[in-house]
Amino acid sequence: MKHNFLMIPGPIEVDSDILTEMSAPLIAHYGPDWVPFHNETVNLVKQVFCAQQSDLFLMPGPGSVAIETAISSLLSDGSKALVITNGFFGDRWLKVVRTYTKQVISVAAQWGKPVQIEAVRSVLKKERDIKVAIVVHGETSTGMVNPIKEIAPICHEYGAILIVDAVSTLGGVPLPVDEWKIGICATATQKCLECPPGLAPISMSADAWRAVEKCSSPGWYMNLRTWKEYIVRWGDWHPHPVTMPTGLTKALHLSCTKILEEGLEARFARHARFAHMVRRGLQNLGFELFIDQEEYQSNTFTAIKTHERLPANLLVKYLKEKHHIQIAGGLDELAGKIFRIGHMGPTASSRAVLPTLFAIEEALRESGVHIKRGACFEGLGLDVEAALSNI
Amino acid sequence: MKHNFLMIPGPIEVDSDILTEMSAPLIAHYGPDWVPFHNETVNLVKQVFCAQQSDLFLMPGPGSVAIETAISSLLSDGSKALVITNGFFGDRWLKVVRTYTKQVISVAAQWGKPVQIEAVRSVLKKERDIKVAIVVHGETSTGMVNPIKEIAPICHEYGAILIVDAVSTLGGVPLPVDEWKIGICATATQKCLECPPGLAPISMSADAWRAVEKCSSPGWYMNLRTWKEYIVRWGDWHPHPVTMPTGLTKALHLSCTKILEEGLEARFARHARFAHMVRRGLQNLGFELFIDQEEYQSNTFTAIKTHERLPANLLVKYLKEKHHIQIAGGLDELAGKIFRIGHMGPTASSRAVLPTLFAIEEALRESGVHIKRGACFEGLGLDVEAALSNI
Repeated sequence: MKHNFLMIPGPIEVDSDILTEMSAPLIAHYGPDWVPFHNETVNLVKQVFCAQQSDLFLMPGPGSVAIETAISSLLSDGSKALVITNGFFGDRWLKVVRTYTKQVISVAAQWGKPVQIEAVRSVLKKERDIKVAIVVHGETSTGMVNPIKEIAPICHEYGAILIVDAVSTLGGVPLPVDEWKIGICATATQKCLECPPGLAPISMSADAWRAVEKCSSPGWYMNLRTWKEYIVRWGDWHPHPVTMPTGLTKALHLSCTKILEEGLEARFARHARFAHMVRRGLQNLGFELFIDQEEYQSNTFTAIKTHERLPANLLVKYLKEKHHIQIAGGLDELAGKIFRIGHMGPTASSRAVLPTLFAIEEALRESGVHIKRGACFEGLGLDVEAALSNI
Repeated sequence: MKHNFLMIPGPIEVDSDILTEMSAPLIAHYGPDWVPFHNETVNLVKQVFCAQQSDLFLMPGPGSVAIETAISSLLSDGSKALVITNGFFGDRWLKVVRTYTKQVISVAAQWGKPVQIEAVRSVLKKERDIKVAIVVHGETSTGMVNPIKEIAPICHEYGAILIVDAVSTLGGVPLPVDEWKIGICATATQKCLECPPGLAPISMSADAWRAVEKCSSPGWYMNLRTWKEYIVRWGDWHPHPVTMPTGLTKALHLSCTKILEEGLEARFARHARFAHMVRRGLQNLGFELFIDQEEYQSNTFTAIKTHERLPANLLVKYLKEKHHIQIAGGLDELAGKIFRIGHMGPTASSRAVLPTLFAIEEALRESGVHIKRGACFEGLGLDVEAALSNI
């Protein structure tokens, strides 16, 4: 079966040098050959997180495991939590947090609408004893990026440990974990870290550790105390409680090396450039973005309202069948109302974005919408003829 | 760096056709292309588990996550549990279970000694309200295989759901999950399932599901209700709550196809044959097995007492440095006292076992022990000269 090029909001297209690391013969996940390599990988990931003052663990499993580990490690004692939500994934964390503690306050906005920062402040101020605040950075369901830079200092001011779900943003947009005083930040390898799925890096600040240490949470794997204990007790032999996917760790080592070689600033600028190209290209075609204010549009994925002449599910189908390009529809209550495009890591690039835009243009034309060939490329600073001849 | 051939008790050497699946371009983990493939993989794994009457989930993460998910899903309400232990991993489950419930009874034997089955029965009979029993099938720390065939019917008789940690045995020795009425059974991909690490298959019987359904456990990922709910609600689109490692799922599909082509009976016989070869070969060299009774020796790995003339750590080092063969030392209280060899899947084979035995023979000889060249191969039904010329 022909490969469908992944322009969904993760997993992403992975470069072949990274994929090759996955198929090397296995190595043991302990001992003197492994530990320095593991620790070096952790250090590279810390640099991508800008979290060199924090602890950082590589948890085998999906990103959700790491976020829930933070929740479980801090809220199993029934402490008070604030969940900030404006999308499918934020709402899911709200449900999950409610299984751990009855003391949950939410500051919610409609899906795709900005959260009122002053509401966050007033809840924290009024309650005083909120131990943990949780927010999704990039809401993959809506295309929104929440303003952690504004939320984090407020949480810090009122002594709440901030947990950030950065699954679809970390490594693609600025999120300096230490500088912004983020208590716990977690992501997954299959998005902006440019690897296959299977590892969830999670950082923990000194403040967060002090809070974790005091919390009598049950459980072993999803307990940050276990992870820290293994570093302390078994650091030179087996600095993690379980078998590590060594091939994926090697892939992550390579991808983070490449990310740091590119440079974080240059990388964020590249993501911004191609995000702009996607948005402007689609607007050229008459589409409307789901997130209207630019400051809330994520540079790693975009959600677009369905065109009146072309239902989202038909567009998704057309791109896959005719062009072998896979984009995503809407989730849950947004099904049929939007479609979503990822532009992260290797797909924040001309070779990914231009053919995708042109395929969408073609889909519209085939639906009877009158558009000039190459209209999607206008105003993008491209040589439109050259772009068309390269498609 | 030259590759060290993995004769540790997992992860194992993985065949190159399986490894190749890991480096194919990523595919999406949802939708009409993925779901039939995912479900077919689940069905293949069910056949290897002999668990076609059970539910089976593929959990991203290490084997421990799946076992702890069973514990968390059943014991978060503080119900009474029985932990059967005679090794490092059994003891670890005892500690983990104690974080979930205060009502814990253990039937313990010394590490490497058989558990008294009558003690299991009398505890279950006396207590009457034990909800869950937990036992490790293959105790990787000691080389022991616990008699699930005897333990399971007793648990069933007294209404306790049995959780079996089959991480280092499933697919290598008989463990017919449905027939033996095992409530929950979990393993990991990097042992007898012949894949890299990263997925933990877990089966759940109808009885176990009824018990899980009644238990008000917190949490989302490590909660079997979440996994079942996704099959019911999202079965035709996304039959699992998180992003799946699709490459590893493809690897698992291929490895299980190969396992079933070999046939489970033939496969168990092969593991028995090469386990015997390892044991007899080492006994030929004057080594003593850590597990003395044959019925308790696992056919997937072997623990051997340190030779008086060659400390275990030096043997491990010698094999790695001189032969690029990696075996394991002892864990925790057995460090220095034993060494361990894995013989699972691809390494339950002449090409793996013969060079390992011969390298150990050579190590002994270099330590000044007088042994005839090829002594390790005697009585194994081999042409010793041919074996030597093939090393």
